[in-house]
Parts: sequence; structure tokens; C-alpha cells
Amino acid sequence: MDPDLSKLDGFLNEVDVDGYLIEADGDAADQRYLSGFTAPDPFVTLYTGETHLLVSALEYGRAKRTARAETVERHADYDHRSNVAEYGSHEGKYRTLAAFFDAHGAGSVAVPADFPIGTADGLRRCDVAVQADIDGVLGEIRARKHAEEVEHIRAAQRANESAMARAEKLLAAAETVDGTLSLDDEPLTAERVKREIEIELLRNDCALDETIVACGADAADPHDRGSGPLRPDEAIIVDIFPCSKETGYYADMTRTFCVGEPSDTIERWYDLTLEAQTAALDAIEAGVSASDVHDAVCDVYEAAGLPTLRADETTETGFIHTTGHGVGLDIHEYPRISEEPIELEAGNVVTVEPGLYDPAVGGVRIEDLVVVTEDGHENLTEYPKALAVESR
Amino acid sequence: MDPDLSKLDGFLNEVDVDGYLIEADGDAADQRYLSGFTAPDPFVTLYTGETHLLVSALEYGRAKRTARAETVERHADYDHRSNVAEYGSHEGKYRTLAAFFDAHGAGSVAVPADFPIGTADGLRRCDVAVQADIDGVLGEIRARKHAEEVEHIRAAQRANESAMARAEKLLAAAETVDGTLSLDDEPLTAERVKREIEIELLRNDCALDETIVACGADAADPHDRGSGPLRPDEAIIVDIFPCSKETGYYADMTRTFCVGEPSDTIERWYDLTLEAQTAALDAIEAGVSASDVHDAVCDVYEAAGLPTLRADETTETGFIHTTGHGVGLDIHEYPRISEEPIELEAGNVVTVEPGLYDPAVGGVRIEDLVVVTEDGHENLTEYPKALAVESR
Repeated sequence: MDPDLSKLDGFLNEVDVDGYLIEADGDAADQRYLSGFTAPDPFVTLYTGETHLLVSALEYGRAKRTARAETVERHADYDHRSNVAEYGSHEGKYRTLAAFFDAHGAGSVAVPADFPIGTADGLRRCDVAVQADIDGVLGEIRARKHAEEVEHIRAAQRANESAMARAEKLLAAAETVDGTLSLDDEPLTAERVKREIEIELLRNDCALDETIVACGADAADPHDRGSGPLRPDEAIIVDIFPCSKETGYYADMTRTFCVGEPSDTIERWYDLTLEAQTAALDAIEAGVSASDVHDAVCDVYEAAGLPTLRADETTETGFIHTTGHGVGLDIHEYPRISEEPIELEAGNVVTVEPGLYDPAVGGVRIEDLVVVTEDGHENLTEYPKALAVESR
Repeated sequence: MDPDLSKLDGFLNEVDVDGYLIEADGDAADQRYLSGFTAPDPFVTLYTGETHLLVSALEYGRAKRTARAETVERHADYDHRSNVAEYGSHEGKYRTLAAFFDAHGAGSVAVPADFPIGTADGLRRCDVAVQADIDGVLGEIRARKHAEEVEHIRAAQRANESAMARAEKLLAAAETVDGTLSLDDEPLTAERVKREIEIELLRNDCALDETIVACGADAADPHDRGSGPLRPDEAIIVDIFPCSKETGYYADMTRTFCVGEPSDTIERWYDLTLEAQTAALDAIEAGVSASDVHDAVCDVYEAAGLPTLRADETTETGFIHTTGHGVGLDIHEYPRISEEPIELEAGNVVTVEPGLYDPAVGGVRIEDLVVVTEDGHENLTEYPKALAVESR
């Protein structure tokens, strides 16, 4: 894939700097997108209309072979050792970088908002003008996915569904012993289900991020990963977000299950959440504001008398997160589906994940992953939605 | 564990600021150490002699229950929504942060070198004085491990050895078919061995970082993760660095194996690398300079006529990396064992991992993980060292 960087060229022109600079871990999304290279340790990418990499001796050979860059250089090409000997390891590094920029005609650079302050202030002391690109132009460029990127995400989502099926199968096969779920004479714990999910993802060449399997009050905290024995008649949230080891692209999906008899409140919350998700999905198309999609969810919940952060920013129960987020080389990326009025574009890949939470009830969340299209969306999620478990 | 933060108090006094500020991903090592809290999304930790957390509504309940902090607050406590409405999402956030600092008497802060420049410059516009702590005082504090931390690392290392045994067993059981290794009528590929390593780590509750299984020319690039069928009579580097899911602490170990008959060069390199590692381990004790440990490795290699970066900073073959690095909540942390003269302290946990590389020969690396003690070291690695594979 050859990314279209005309928007980056326009940005550099607009803010009147010579280049765009990234110094980040080798798997940072912006850097991977811009350089086509990934490494275990930090390296430097400078874009001036052409892409220039500065890497350690260790990465030099592989970067020369595989990076999408006009030039690949290493610190030794800029007298790094004598800089460090004369100025110490930090100031010496800034001087090496300044010399590298100078060689590529970059006396001023824009950097991502998360660029390290140590390097930024150090470069400023070397008379390089550094300004933060707070809005994240590369995040915006990355948000419009190429067809090839959508296929990478779709492939990760297929692995995701295979892992979800594994989890649901375990739940469907469980029986209740002394008030908790049990399988093959062992307690069926959140940890055990997560392990099986992760092994299934590994078998499909996906990297092993965190997974959420949370039951009852645990599930009422949307970020609690869950622990301990799972229980019947309670809502169990399963949220899986794998990353393809080969491509680096993520997928993301949540389902909520109940083994046994859900309470009336859980059933009502499930139906409402499905209704809220449908309303949000119906609202999605290119040109629409993300805040309208978020409002569609809040409208459904508030009409049912349930609290939302929109209605009360201090509520700790009800709908206490945003509606969704972009997914790509990062698990959480631009555009967010929240109260912020961001115009959705064709090619955006976003989650739609309304949910309700209360420690006294538990949690319910349903999450799909969709591509925004000119006249609506394509749902990349094929997994069925039902509270009752089935052995798929 | 209650970390001893007296060194941090001294640092704040010395650089004359009111507080130490971290805004980072929830699993960033410094922040996890300082706050005792971890979360999937970024949050803010401010240390002023007491620890204050600012988290999203989503994390608020869990942070109040589990963080090691005097106060836990959320953005809504500082008029965040009206700040964003009036000043936009970025400038509004900086004003919310500035109000949070003001409430805790912090008009000036030091921040880690990797603190995001967007936030730093934004706070400066709100008249908060922000200076980068380039040397990383928290990294230095974290480098002296408490006994409890050493036990966490030891536990991760036990899981690591179980995974290494799994890998070696696969290699020992392989036979040669058409010039490549085969097991159970399937090619024994680097990917297949890595997958089994990762599954074994998962079964021992370790998170799934990258793993290196690299054969022949692949192994000559120290950061190549390896791919494709493994071959007999070549050196195969297996480098495993798991992270305990529960504690967040890492372990790290490398072994080099050969199935079949290694070349004379590989055998000689293996013996030299063992000799270099022994020399480095013998040099380690509290009070010694890390550069002396690194020199011990270079001395062995150079005496044998092999290139090192110390002798020629442009070499692409021979010993082309540093001798080791600290291990803890980060896989690569302070202190590095390199040409930099850093005094080792009792309680440092470091790797000792000399190696030799040349695409025409392959790669050899042997890595142990040790605790620096007053009069030497304790080796946390129990796994045997031998080039020939055995079914353990």
C-alpha cells in the first residue's frame, strides 16, 4: 500500500514547517504507517516530501531492506559517538538528530502531540523549531482506510469471531455447581475463558492483547477485565480486540451472554442496548457528524429513563462511556464517536458499542465494527447477537 | 509494596518544582509504579509528596478502590465539560489539568522525558512551568528492586523456562526432511515454535509479547523475529521475554540451539559467547560500572579477532549490540549495560546477553537475567546452556 500523503504535504505547507518528525516506539501506529517499518525499539522518521529514517545499528540492515523510505541512515552517519562523548548521551543525541535534519533541509518540524518532551525541548536548544501537531494530521490520514487496510481489519475480525465462538461454546457447555459455572469438573472462571480466547487468537496469528470476560458487578466497570468464577443468571460481557501479528491491524467486538435465566432488568437492558446500537448504525453515513451517532444512543437510553453522561456528567451508572472509536493500526484511533462533532468520512472504520452499567445489576454491552460508506455502512461483524448462549 | 519515594522528594527539591507529573498510557511503567494503578487508557498522576490521580469517569470507581493514591478525582471535578465547550477539546483539557494542579498546589512540575509535548506546551500556555526530567528519576528509583519485585520477576522467569523447554523439546523431536526440520509430518517453522512458546506462556498467565525464533541468516539480525522452516546444522536463536499478566513484571532469556551438526564457526562462536557471558557475570557487583561489564564482553570478542561496535562503530557483523539492560515493569529499563559508565547498585535486575552475528554464518546469543548483589550477583536463570538440543 502506498499511502496518499498529499494531506500531510498540505499540512506542512499550512503550518509552514520543513518536515514532520516522529520519534516513537517501533510499533507506534503513525510511524508504522509513514515508514512502512516496525521495530522493537524507538527510531526516527522524518518526512519532508520524502521519507528519511534514522535507526540504530541493530535495525539498519532490515530497515534498508524493508522500510518505505527514500533514505535509511544510522546514528554513526552523524558522528553520534563523538557527540555523546562531548555533550553526554542526551544532548549528544539531540545534536545527532539536528545534524540529520540539517542534512535533509529541515530546520523546523511539526511533531505528533505525543512526541516526547525531552527530545522536543532538546532539539529546541539546538535551534530546531518544534511545534506540536495537536490535532494529529496522520491520525486523520490513517482514518480513511484503503481497501487493503479494510481487508486486514476484516481478517482480524474473522479471528475475533472464531475466538468469540470458542468463548460462547465454553459458556454453553457449562453447568451450575454450588452457584457458579463449572465445566469438566473445574470452575469456569473468567481467567479460563480468556485463556481459551487468547489461545484461539494465537492459532489465528493474532497478538495477544487484553481480553475482557466480566460477570455481574465486575462487568459494571466497563474496563474491568474480569476475574474469578462466572455465575449463572448474570450478564457476562466478552470484549475481544485482537491485533494481527502480520499486518498490525486490530479488530474489536463485544457480546453479552447469560447462562440460565437473566433478570428482567438485564433482559430490558439488552433489548435497549440492541435498540440503541441499531439507532446508531442507522445514523452512520459519510458526511454525518459522529456526535449525531452518539446522540442516537443517548436518545434511546434517556427516553427509557436511564442515566447517561450526556444528561449528567457525574453519573457512575447507566451509559458511562462514548459510543465508539476508530480502529486500525491502533485499537483506539480517530475518529471517536462521542459528543465531539467530527464529520465521518467514507473509509472510516469505527466501533459502535453502546452499554449500560450498574454494580447492583451488572453490565451489558454490544459492539460491532463497521466501515463508513457514502450511503451508510458495511458491518464487518458477522457474529450473531443473543443474550442466551448457544454452542456454535 | 510501598515504594520508597525519598529520592523523588529529593529530586523535586533539587530542581525546585512543586510536583512530578505523568500523563501516560495506563500500563506505562513509571505511572504504574507511582500510582499502583493500571488502565487501558491514559490517565494523570501528580506527585507532590502525596499522590493524586485524575482519571476518566470510566476508571473512577476502580481507581478509588485500588490505586495507591491520597486522592482520586475525575475530569468532571474540574469543570471539564465547560472548559471543552469554551476552549475546544485540547485547550479545554489543558485548563482542566491546570485547575487540578492548582488545587494541589503545583504551579511547576517535572515530567518524564517521554511526556507528550502537546500537553507540555499546552500547560505552558496555561502558565504551568513544565520541565523535562531527562535522566528519568523514576527509572532510577525503579531500578533498585524490592524483594517482592525480584520474586515477581523470578516467577515470570519460571514461566519463561517452561516455554523454553517446550521450544527445545520441539527441536529435539524434529527430523530432517528435504533439508528442513519437520515434526509430525509438518514443517517445523519458526512460527510454529513461537506459537507453542506463546501458548505455554499463556498457560502460565504471562502476556504475549513478541518472541524471537530465528535460524541462520535471520538470526544474524538481532531483532529479526524469524520466519519460515527451521533448518538443521544452523544456529537457532530463541529469545523469550514474557510479562506476568498479574504483576506486570517481565523476564528475559535467550538460548541458541543447533539440531544436527553445527559448523566449526558456530561452535567457536558459541564457546566464545559463553566465555564472554561468564566474563561479564564475573564482573558484576554493586559499585562496578556497567561499562566495565560491557568491556569484559568486548575484550573476549576482540581478543578472538571478532568485530565489535566498540572497536568499529560502523560494523554490521560481530558483536553489534550492548551487553544488557534492566528488566522490571519495562522489558528495557535502567540500567543499560553498555559503554555508558553507570554504577550498578544492589537490587538492579539486568540481562547479560552477548552475541555474535554475520549473515554468512548466522547468529549466536546467550542471555541470563541476574540480580546485582553487594558482592556479585544472583542468577535468576536456571535453564541449562548447550548448543545441542535435548528433550527436557
